[in-house]
Amino acid sequence: MNYPNGIINNNNKEINYKNRGMTLESELNESNEYYRFINKAYIYKKPTPIKITKVDYPSRNKAIIKEAFFTIPSTTDYNGLYRGKYIDFEAKETKSKTSFALTNIHEHQIKHIANINNNGGIAFLIVRFTTLNETYLLTADDFLSFLNNTDRKSIPIDFFRNKGYLIKDSYKPIIDYLKVIDNIIGGI
Amino acid sequence: MNYPNGIINNNNKEINYKNRGMTLESELNESNEYYRFINKAYIYKKPTPIKITKVDYPSRNKAIIKEAFFTIPSTTDYNGLYRGKYIDFEAKETKSKTSFALTNIHEHQIKHIANINNNGGIAFLIVRFTTLNETYLLTADDFLSFLNNTDRKSIPIDFFRNKGYLIKDSYKPIIDYLKVIDNIIGGI
Repeated sequence: MNYPNGIINNNNKEINYKNRGMTLESELNESNEYYRFINKAYIYKKPTPIKITKVDYPSRNKAIIKEAFFTIPSTTDYNGLYRGKYIDFEAKETKSKTSFALTNIHEHQIKHIANINNNGGIAFLIVRFTTLNETYLLTADDFLSFLNNTDRKSIPIDFFRNKGYLIKDSYKPIIDYLKVIDNIIGGI
Repeated sequence: MNYPNGIINNNNKEINYKNRGMTLESELNESNEYYRFINKAYIYKKPTPIKITKVDYPSRNKAIIKEAFFTIPSTTDYNGLYRGKYIDFEAKETKSKTSFALTNIHEHQIKHIANINNNGGIAFLIVRFTTLNETYLLTADDFLSFLNNTDRKSIPIDFFRNKGYLIKDSYKPIIDYLKVIDNIIGGI
């Protein structure tokens, strides 16, 4: 690893931190890797949940999955540890310029976010409006209060602009979302 | 769900809690489901990490994974939230009557356990000696101190008997490992 030059070796492929056009997921993965590197937080993306239905064992130690299906996640994609606290969030991109469709977050995930929020964990969403190039952190409190007070099928961009925290691109990490969390739980 | 009778509907299959001969993994999954049901803790097993190399899309909303490979996990299998704290552990079974081979825990996982332990999380192993029918919780502190003080390639059963916490089978949940955690972090 070679962070001082802003370049890491990841799967034998060099990644330049200044490259734009990355997906939110890859930017979060790199940011989380950086947080681990500087011993700031231990937050990981969970593997994609799948149901495996067919596996071949061509030799003793090699298994090839020959058939599997994507399954609906019951929890959020990211969780981990920061400042002794349990962190849990979901991250989504939308091309819309006006709103974030609630179909992006499954019912199970909403319940999970509420459970974490009610039990001392720090839960939130990170939503990127890719066309606008605006990325927001929305706390579980604000997200859940929106859901409880509306029948709308989407969250308007103005709700994010009013209630969310705009996360500006930075260099290291690319998405410094823990700075927002510091704001929320109080500075160190 | 139908917990009061000790039976849940899981994938359309009825499971009786009193059945023995279950794997440690399925017992932990049921125990975690019970903890969630009584709103005690939110701890999940992470999906198995795989690398997907081929996907078919026979129709717009159906994707079938046609080729994928199991990858080495960089973290532990289980994590979540309990009493406002971050919980993180790995669970393993062994048929050995005398020791637990350290090849069961990957180098990355050991580093992860140390990082969590050093940053205010609660990390541990749950190891079942299936032949002996003994299941132990071993704290990260004891696990890491063993590793630091030996060149052995396995942890003898006596180390678990001396330093670990024996988890006896119970009814609900089957494996009440959070009782041990209460002991360690102090009763409620």
